[in-house]
Amino acid sequence: MRVAIFFGSKSDTEVMRGAANALKEFNIEYKAFILSAHRVPEKLEETLEMVEKEGCEVIIAGAGLAAHLPGVIASKTILPVIGVPINAALQGLDALYSIVQMPKAIPVATVGINNSYNAGMLALQMLSIKDESLKNKLIEFRTNMKKRFIDENVEGVQL
Amino acid sequence: MRVAIFFGSKSDTEVMRGAANALKEFNIEYKAFILSAHRVPEKLEETLEMVEKEGCEVIIAGAGLAAHLPGVIASKTILPVIGVPINAALQGLDALYSIVQMPKAIPVATVGINNSYNAGMLALQMLSIKDESLKNKLIEFRTNMKKRFIDENVEGVQL
Amino acid sequence: MRVAIFFGSKSDTEVMRGAANALKEFNIEYKAFILSAHRVPEKLEETLEMVEKEGCEVIIAGAGLAAHLPGVIASKTILPVIGVPINAALQGLDALYSIVQMPKAIPVATVGINNSYNAGMLALQMLSIKDESLKNKLIEFRTNMKKRFIDENVEGVQL
Amino acid sequence: MRVAIFFGSKSDTEVMRGAANALKEFNIEYKAFILSAHRVPEKLEETLEMVEKEGCEVIIAGAGLAAHLPGVIASKTILPVIGVPINAALQGLDALYSIVQMPKAIPVATVGINNSYNAGMLALQMLSIKDESLKNKLIEFRTNMKKRFIDENVEGVQL
Amino acid sequence: MRVAIFFGSKSDTEVMRGAANALKEFNIEYKAFILSAHRVPEKLEETLEMVEKEGCEVIIAGAGLAAHLPGVIASKTILPVIGVPINAALQGLDALYSIVQMPKAIPVATVGINNSYNAGMLALQMLSIKDESLKNKLIEFRTNMKKRFIDENVEGVQL
Amino acid sequence: MRVAIFFGSKSDTEVMRGAANALKEFNIEYKAFILSAHRVPEKLEETLEMVEKEGCEVIIAGAGLAAHLPGVIASKTILPVIGVPINAALQGLDALYSIVQMPKAIPVATVGINNSYNAGMLALQMLSIKDESLKNKLIEFRTNMKKRFIDENVEGVQL
Amino acid sequence: MRVAIFFGSKSDTEVMRGAANALKEFNIEYKAFILSAHRVPEKLEETLEMVEKEGCEVIIAGAGLAAHLPGVIASKTILPVIGVPINAALQGLDALYSIVQMPKAIPVATVGINNSYNAGMLALQMLSIKDESLKNKLIEFRTNMKKRFIDENVEGVQL
Amino acid sequence: MRVAIFFGSKSDTEVMRGAANALKEFNIEYKAFILSAHRVPEKLEETLEMVEKEGCEVIIAGAGLAAHLPGVIASKTILPVIGVPINAALQGLDALYSIVQMPKAIPVATVGINNSYNAGMLALQMLSIKDESLKNKLIEFRTNMKKRFIDENVEGVQL
Repeated sequence: MRVAIFFGSKSDTEVMRGAANALKEFNIEYKAFILSAHRVPEKLEETLEMVEKEGCEVIIAGAGLAAHLPGVIASKTILPVIGVPINAALQGLDALYSIVQMPKAIPVATVGINNSYNAGMLALQMLSIKDESLKNKLIEFRTNMKKRFIDENVEGVQL
Repeated sequence: MRVAIFFGSKSDTEVMRGAANALKEFNIEYKAFILSAHRVPEKLEETLEMVEKEGCEVIIAGAGLAAHLPGVIASKTILPVIGVPINAALQGLDALYSIVQMPKAIPVATVGINNSYNAGMLALQMLSIKDESLKNKLIEFRTNMKKRFIDENVEGVQL
Repeated sequence: MRVAIFFGSKSDTEVMRGAANALKEFNIEYKAFILSAHRVPEKLEETLEMVEKEGCEVIIAGAGLAAHLPGVIASKTILPVIGVPINAALQGLDALYSIVQMPKAIPVATVGINNSYNAGMLALQMLSIKDESLKNKLIEFRTNMKKRFIDENVEGVQL
Repeated sequence: MRVAIFFGSKSDTEVMRGAANALKEFNIEYKAFILSAHRVPEKLEETLEMVEKEGCEVIIAGAGLAAHLPGVIASKTILPVIGVPINAALQGLDALYSIVQMPKAIPVATVGINNSYNAGMLALQMLSIKDESLKNKLIEFRTNMKKRFIDENVEGVQL
Repeated sequence: MRVAIFFGSKSDTEVMRGAANALKEFNIEYKAFILSAHRVPEKLEETLEMVEKEGCEVIIAGAGLAAHLPGVIASKTILPVIGVPINAALQGLDALYSIVQMPKAIPVATVGINNSYNAGMLALQMLSIKDESLKNKLIEFRTNMKKRFIDENVEGVQL
Repeated sequence: MRVAIFFGSKSDTEVMRGAANALKEFNIEYKAFILSAHRVPEKLEETLEMVEKEGCEVIIAGAGLAAHLPGVIASKTILPVIGVPINAALQGLDALYSIVQMPKAIPVATVGINNSYNAGMLALQMLSIKDESLKNKLIEFRTNMKKRFIDENVEGVQL
Repeated sequence: MRVAIFFGSKSDTEVMRGAANALKEFNIEYKAFILSAHRVPEKLEETLEMVEKEGCEVIIAGAGLAAHLPGVIASKTILPVIGVPINAALQGLDALYSIVQMPKAIPVATVGINNSYNAGMLALQMLSIKDESLKNKLIEFRTNMKKRFIDENVEGVQL
Repeated sequence: MRVAIFFGSKSDTEVMRGAANALKEFNIEYKAFILSAHRVPEKLEETLEMVEKEGCEVIIAGAGLAAHLPGVIASKTILPVIGVPINAALQGLDALYSIVQMPKAIPVATVGINNSYNAGMLALQMLSIKDESLKNKLIEFRTNMKKRFIDENVEGVQL
């Protein structure tokens, strides 16, 4: 597995699927784990050690409310950790602040509220630093995205 | 020690002194520890175990920014944990949301932003559930506070 | 009764049921009262005196909007008061600020917005300071919660 | 006394002076009291009864943080209560929400953050409902305010 | 008419009905006008003059978004103006700030978001300054409200 | 005069100078007026009529707090009105919401908080729709701004 | 075409239709383009050049989330750019701040959240600076709006 | 150069120095550029192409207000882009929302407000995916950070 996806509750599955979808589009191996920083801290640690041993290169973690999961993971690894704030209350602002405002030297790479697809995309971009072939696929993906965007909207829009 | 006070950085010492001041007024034994949930997670766990062994009954934890310390402690003990949001940015709203919005079954008893004195007072109130003598002192303290308030303001105020 | 639950309106019953549920799980005797700080201040005072006489050890109070109930109760007792901000407008931020930002020496132990279950759990933790048997049950509860969490999610998740 | 001004702490004196200044400009008799809803609830009640007996017609109450004072007073009188949110934290938003978001049937007439002068002016407007002479003075005041404003700015401004 | 109710759009009718309901309960004569500060400023001025001539003593004004109506009215009369922030966007915070943050000397007595009933109640309290009979009715109303509240909740609540 | 600048208080002069500065750079004739929507509504109307008669083509209006001035002006003219939210409290959010959230059909062209220079620049852009020479100057200004920016930063920066 | 309308996604079509509706009412020629600042930056630039060549005089741009489109357009033209914040999250506050808080010298004329009709109206007002006939139509439109408003509400309202 | 640091104004130099400091500690080659998305869009594009040609692997971009720079860069490269929200107004919330709330498929890895050191650290973590030696240095750095933290605070703290 190259990417590990963590989130704290089954109810977050739909929001977090976007991360997996981005990785699948590029055939990047990943595993997903439901693990809570507050409910099963020991299991979280154990799983983190395991994924590191299995060669995991990037971690994605989604959480809502007082969203400690991404930061707690970041404190236990030097792998880059991507945080997805999940809107469970306060429109997701509680989760956003709990994830992005990390103290000095323990960053979490935060993406938009509920925007797990972008977490997957960011993981791909990180992996492409060392993976020329993935980099080329990402460039191609962008090019195609542009083409598709233009094709879909080429006729302009009737307002 | 009956109360343990945790906070994540020397720079929070002044804000957190209020908690100690409240405890000192009632001669409640406490110890204070600078320990970060993100920087030294293992040391935090070790210290938590130690304070529990030494008979600690209530924990006070202050933190700013993505303030995970109180919640991370709460996830590792069933002692009541009192959280103090410290204003290090966003007027302390980031810390408030990161502390108060805990998930189901792992509460943090949150007090006002920078209001560590109230954390100390709340610890005293919790301890007084089992300590009749402390309870009486708290009642006396309230009575005196009222008297003093009235004495100081008895003449009314010239506006 | 060991815990008294107060809230200001029948319409808050569902939100506040979580507090009772937590207490029931541990067979802690409680009583619930619908009493408004603004509508029936005298009745509130009278009831507070009664519950104190009946040996109440912790008070839980839920309120929405300009949520004065927990603070008003806290000003009239030295029992620990746990406040539940109820979302009736502004996503519950009005209630959160009205409950958590108490002045010096009169704390309210605030939990998350609408999270009355955590208020019940926090009451249990406070009671366990003097009640070894309850403390052991809480430890067992945590252990079981972890087991159940892991069992439910052991297969990992298909994203 | 026709107007009673309440606030919870000596430190609010400067902010609340504006209310007195407005009343002085119109020779309306007032008294000011430092009284806290949380610290001296009984004294507050006693004083409220006294000011009502002395013929008080409007109450002004200023408070910061979890600003319960205006609402608590409003729950104990049917005199109109004017609330002044004082900025002691969160730019005064905690106080604003705690004062303005009152439940059904117990209103507080809220003015701007720290704007106690407007509380005094609003009290004057309320009193002028029954006081033709005061009403005329208020109309004259407005007319003069306009004149003065125009005089001061008649030359335009050099930018 | 003793009270005039203004609001800016037919779509606000349901929200504003609460003000009328409060006045009806006490048989206070009122009239309601749909008039926009921005769309028909001249008509607004004309109507204001008319209601003043007809002996109006208090004005209630509700508005959403950039809610200028209450403040614009307040700038044109010395009658007390009660403002009702209506939630049309941003949970009503835009309207609340636009109404409550008035400049020096031109207050608007602001009530809670969408809480037009409280605007009606506040108008009654203002009128009762000069109207002993209304004052007694308000006191009776409070007493009955308390009784009813207690009756409805006397059995306590099953949680 | 081609542009009229309005603001409500002498204390806003420094913030609003930016608008004049932008206009001066392009030799566009303007006049500035201190006029309050709430304090001198009649004088405001009178002045608006005057500036329209004098050929004014764009209006800039700055205001803080419950910032009604730009909207009130917009309701009385079909000239484009540019609003500058001034930070007098709440970091200028009260002014921003009071200016930008205008109702249907009465727009105010809002610029950034305290950013009166941009109001001037926007006025220039509007005027350039009919003024080819001004348009060319604006294009030249942009080109020079770019050159200057690059010149100043050409050496890169030492971090 | 005299006005070009840009927005970043087909899903914004309904929100942006208001801008077109305003322009249609006055028979102002416009074209609409779905073009994203982030997805097709080159196509955006190309289209901007084209619309400028075709004589476009005002640009309207709507965007949600990190709403860069209006600002990016404004950086590439000296035509006045009107920005419409679209509510896609956080009630549209993210879009509002991303659009209105532009740096010095590159303004975006921001209208209310989702209020594209006002963007169209503002464009008309800008065009009327040079177009006396349009100006007269706008004045007539305002007059009719007032009449219609008064007609619809002439009977007052039954509350 | 392995990392390129961009920011929009000389005045941001001090805030952004933290990013360089983190990179220097690990001897990672970087270059810093003052380049504005709005003022010199063409120069920005040109520089981006240059840094990509020179082998840049990660980009750090800081911006305040309507902080478009990180997102605009992200739209033009598939290198991972780290965004630093700079507090220039609204406590940095405008910049935070403008950076983190990116649309689907164009992520920006956002760090805390003004926390450019964490941007540097995150860049190092990304680079370490392919650079075993850097990874080991990061692990060592963490270990040392922990030691130093414990050493500095080993005596506990006197409150």
